[in-house]
Amino acid sequence: MDLDALAKAHPDHWSKATAIRALTLDAVAAANSGHSGMPMGMADVATVLFEKHLKFDAANPLWPDRDRFILSAGHGSMLIYSLLHLVGDAQFPIEELKNFRQMGARTAGHPENFLADAIETTTGPLGQGIANSVGFAMAEEIQRATYGKKVVDHHTYVIAGDGCLMEGVSQEAITLAGRHKLSKLIVLWDNNDITIDGPVTLSDRTDQVGRFVAAGWHVIEIDGHDPEEIDAALTEARKSDKPTMIACKTHIALGHAAQDTSKGHGALTDAEQMADAKAAYGWTAGPFEIPAEIKSAWEEIGKRGAEERRAWEERFDAMPRSKRETFNRALALDAPKKLSATIKAFKKQMSEAAPKLATRASSEKVLEVVNPIMAETVGGSADLTGSNNTKTADLGVFDVDNRAGRYVYWGIREHGMAAAMNGMALHGGVRPYGGTFMCFTDYARPSMRLAALMKIPTVFVMTHDSIGLGEDGPTHQPVEHLAISRATPNTYVFRPADTVETAEAWEIALTSKKTPSVLSLTRQGLPTVRKDHKNNNMVEKGAYVLADAEGKRQVILIASGSEVSVALEARELLQEEGIGVRVVSMPCMELFAAQDEAYRKRILPGGAVRVGIEAGVRLGWDRWLLGERGKFGKADFVGMDSFGASAPAEELFEKFGITARNVADRAKALL
Amino acid sequence: MDLDALAKAHPDHWSKATAIRALTLDAVAAANSGHSGMPMGMADVATVLFEKHLKFDAANPLWPDRDRFILSAGHGSMLIYSLLHLVGDAQFPIEELKNFRQMGARTAGHPENFLADAIETTTGPLGQGIANSVGFAMAEEIQRATYGKKVVDHHTYVIAGDGCLMEGVSQEAITLAGRHKLSKLIVLWDNNDITIDGPVTLSDRTDQVGRFVAAGWHVIEIDGHDPEEIDAALTEARKSDKPTMIACKTHIALGHAAQDTSKGHGALTDAEQMADAKAAYGWTAGPFEIPAEIKSAWEEIGKRGAEERRAWEERFDAMPRSKRETFNRALALDAPKKLSATIKAFKKQMSEAAPKLATRASSEKVLEVVNPIMAETVGGSADLTGSNNTKTADLGVFDVDNRAGRYVYWGIREHGMAAAMNGMALHGGVRPYGGTFMCFTDYARPSMRLAALMKIPTVFVMTHDSIGLGEDGPTHQPVEHLAISRATPNTYVFRPADTVETAEAWEIALTSKKTPSVLSLTRQGLPTVRKDHKNNNMVEKGAYVLADAEGKRQVILIASGSEVSVALEARELLQEEGIGVRVVSMPCMELFAAQDEAYRKRILPGGAVRVGIEAGVRLGWDRWLLGERGKFGKADFVGMDSFGASAPAEELFEKFGITARNVADRAKALL
Repeated sequence: MDLDALAKAHPDHWSKATAIRALTLDAVAAANSGHSGMPMGMADVATVLFEKHLKFDAANPLWPDRDRFILSAGHGSMLIYSLLHLVGDAQFPIEELKNFRQMGARTAGHPENFLADAIETTTGPLGQGIANSVGFAMAEEIQRATYGKKVVDHHTYVIAGDGCLMEGVSQEAITLAGRHKLSKLIVLWDNNDITIDGPVTLSDRTDQVGRFVAAGWHVIEIDGHDPEEIDAALTEARKSDKPTMIACKTHIALGHAAQDTSKGHGALTDAEQMADAKAAYGWTAGPFEIPAEIKSAWEEIGKRGAEERRAWEERFDAMPRSKRETFNRALALDAPKKLSATIKAFKKQMSEAAPKLATRASSEKVLEVVNPIMAETVGGSADLTGSNNTKTADLGVFDVDNRAGRYVYWGIREHGMAAAMNGMALHGGVRPYGGTFMCFTDYARPSMRLAALMKIPTVFVMTHDSIGLGEDGPTHQPVEHLAISRATPNTYVFRPADTVETAEAWEIALTSKKTPSVLSLTRQGLPTVRKDHKNNNMVEKGAYVLADAEGKRQVILIASGSEVSVALEARELLQEEGIGVRVVSMPCMELFAAQDEAYRKRILPGGAVRVGIEAGVRLGWDRWLLGERGKFGKADFVGMDSFGASAPAEELFEKFGITARNVADRAKALL
Repeated sequence: MDLDALAKAHPDHWSKATAIRALTLDAVAAANSGHSGMPMGMADVATVLFEKHLKFDAANPLWPDRDRFILSAGHGSMLIYSLLHLVGDAQFPIEELKNFRQMGARTAGHPENFLADAIETTTGPLGQGIANSVGFAMAEEIQRATYGKKVVDHHTYVIAGDGCLMEGVSQEAITLAGRHKLSKLIVLWDNNDITIDGPVTLSDRTDQVGRFVAAGWHVIEIDGHDPEEIDAALTEARKSDKPTMIACKTHIALGHAAQDTSKGHGALTDAEQMADAKAAYGWTAGPFEIPAEIKSAWEEIGKRGAEERRAWEERFDAMPRSKRETFNRALALDAPKKLSATIKAFKKQMSEAAPKLATRASSEKVLEVVNPIMAETVGGSADLTGSNNTKTADLGVFDVDNRAGRYVYWGIREHGMAAAMNGMALHGGVRPYGGTFMCFTDYARPSMRLAALMKIPTVFVMTHDSIGLGEDGPTHQPVEHLAISRATPNTYVFRPADTVETAEAWEIALTSKKTPSVLSLTRQGLPTVRKDHKNNNMVEKGAYVLADAEGKRQVILIASGSEVSVALEARELLQEEGIGVRVVSMPCMELFAAQDEAYRKRILPGGAVRVGIEAGVRLGWDRWLLGERGKFGKADFVGMDSFGASAPAEELFEKFGITARNVADRAKALL
């Protein structure tokens, strides 16, 4: 590349973009780790985006109607850190950049949403950002339809790399965006022909333009180093009635000895080569120094949106008070005041009626009372609407001609659904939940982990949660999936035993602000076990005594979900033989673990044998069966230690020994 | 549809295809569950494929040079069961079809590779079959390049539905196939416009033709009910120098009242509607009855390949004996005789040299001695070759002009890689291994589960296995991933402590026939802890005493991987204070659990406090810390109970307390 020509053609632009490149080189050198090439390659695109298009106010990074900027190629984190420092974001003084990738810094190796206001989403696992962006754009559409264009009218911009586009989730994302004509979504592809292993062509020769067109996108191809082309493309994209992908042909590590090579992807720390690159840029300032003129030009960019934001505030304040309150309440993730009473009334009614229901149907009943009073919920399913029971009559279907619709037909895209739900939650103002079969936790898993890491309350409705699914067989029967979600930090895994517990689980999920929830729900009908109404949310305790021993307590049966009624039956069998049995329902291990020791000991005292019952693997159960006691009693577990099989559900429970008779026998064997 | 016209135009074809439809209706009705619509819609395509194109011999379903037939839309399992019954596969007598979806039947809800020889792969989780097929086709190319066209020359045919094509993994698969011009891969898309939730357009409007063309495929569009068009398209596809997608426009549940509706996707069991459909077909035979003429026409099809197979056997026998032996040995998954001695010699050398190495580098060293003597290994990485250390000098790179290459640059496609590796293993003759960062187990997870379910020995090389990854931060630091893989039945999870254990783990992984392996390997350097050479493979025991207590045994430290050396250091600290400490290295919990109780008690006797040490979550550890003892001692665990952070690795181990000092203090606190 002829850098001189670039610099000469657009000197003001060049100096601003070069500031990003210089800061990137300096920070990576200081950390002796990181990814230099991407920020150096995309500096021109990002500069034009921030200078001329992105609606933001650096002093108010949380302004609700800001454009969203998503760095899907998260390894290029110095791009966003440099930008935020340059525009004057108070959370990014130069010290933060000097501390790049160090303990406690906001400038983590990959951008972390919980470390800074202006970081919209955590990226790094490739493809996640672009898939989140679909949810951001959907949330904007829903909010715009709800509150009007004067209050909600912003774009979602994404920088994505070759890695993002190779990941399968990107296909789920772009086909969703195309299907729904999410015209305010604009993806800037860093088309640099390089991956870590070498040229992109080593592993891929996809015609990305053709692929995006096939998905219903508008596509523009530009020179990613020409500010005029970048500006024109962004202007054109904002006018399109489709989502737009701008293919930006760039040079990774522009101007460095490693330019256009896979080495340029990583940490460029050689002092001499750094000096050469800076010289080639015409950059004479010292490490982490930005000439005052350039810094002030950037800070002007940071203030560009201030007036627009003030105007927005006026428009917002002009809205009726109730609308403003709902908007702010949803944004703050506060539940409506009515929720608690509604759940209580529902529970009372269910305890009295004591229906036999699959908990997926219980869940639908809960949603039927919740959705009408909680306008921020957005439901959906990955093509299993009738099976997941996620759709209630009032929601309306989100579509091109019904942007206020609150139900999304996600199609057969579990991963894209989960990632887009995360995007919705991150955008704010909506509270997403979505369903699939629990076994397909596997497909959604990368985004489920990120929900936990990002501290957002996405709700995953996972039905058909055991061999109780029956004939579809082991590919569809979860066995290890409760353990998988429980192994993940900051995740509530709820396995309710009946309609009442399902309502309690939903109440926690819908009031959670920082923790995602997994609702593990049955396909098969279950009796109501909570027939005595309690105002208190018992699931909140994680575990509680459902039926206590008559006579001397010799056995404690601990169960979750569909196995709670098995435990109650086993208790009957044992009590008939004069053996005192306590049944503990344990719908949420994480919440039980969070109780104080006194409560835990009250529920699970020593001096009795324990049997855990759950139609899943034992992993995670030993703590409750073997631990937490001074005096060790014997314990056993009735569950699964292999994959399931294809047969009617009742036969499978027999075959795998998950029956009241077997539980009773195993308990007796311990005495 | 005018069924009469179809029947009249091609009466012989019609009666054969109708047999599939009738059997499907009968079996689903008998089971009162299943998916009728897909087999009914794709019966014409399947009939032409089996009658005129598929190279197979029903009497010899394992003939190595058969064409592979993959039902990616696995819910339509009655299609393959009907076909196998009709062609006379001995494993599919009519009784099997009558037992559809019942306990113990081969005719499981979804096709299971381990239940019948002719079922090439387990499908059901959508997108997996089409992604497997890339591996099948690659294995064929590699074998053809190795053994010649006379011995290896077959196609891979796939039937895929809309669901398969919506799943992101299908994009990873088709772009791989396009990149590598896998011209012997032919996908038949059941283009029926219907998903479970309703018309495909509810959730998707992708131009699939444009999408496949953009991925480098040849595409043909046909009427999927016209046998001449089907035949012509298959003929054309077999001549293409690219992979071919045939878009077959079909009617789901053809001829049934539910035709062209989402109801048609499921179980069509209404007796009257069934009778109407059969009448419309002109089918008068009773349930599960096939008129003799039709059955014998199908059985002729089943014998069509017999002569070709015999001719192949002659050609095979004409190969040099050593080639034949290698071919058969690899197919039988037998390791070369040299492997054991090679590993032993390597271990001895490493015990003596005692290098400080990251176990990912140890793994490379092992591969350097294994790959040259084990021609069936095929390595690869999802764009992290230099980080996963999966490439050795001798392998050569698989490419269009180097089909004998044994290293695959998979690109940023962890899921596609895992699924394709499964396909390779299922094809047989090659033994695949592939690498990514352990955290991206999440992306590969659906296929990793299927490897376990399918009982195939795919090897997943998962490097950067803890916070030891350092600055890249929590998105890249696995915390729960050891637990996730351990929760999965039939999976070996190896976390070796040094180069010697890494060699032992590889030996087990490379001799496994029915169990996949996860190798959890460090980024950071580790000292050699196995300095005394042992011929025995100690990892095979799952856990063993690495250093025993001097004096009275008061403490047992149990650790895996990078924490074994931490345990040894902690032992030093405690022994200095006169506290006797045994260190148990536990590289594979599954293998330790498989030892007899006497061995387990010998390694983990009672009477001492126990501390587990692993830079991951506790889930899975309590069994070894709390269980398996009559007399309960105290126990503790030093590991992670949250996500990690971005900082240099050593600082992270300090921050999270995974240090010898902390382990020693925690152990003392228990005494």
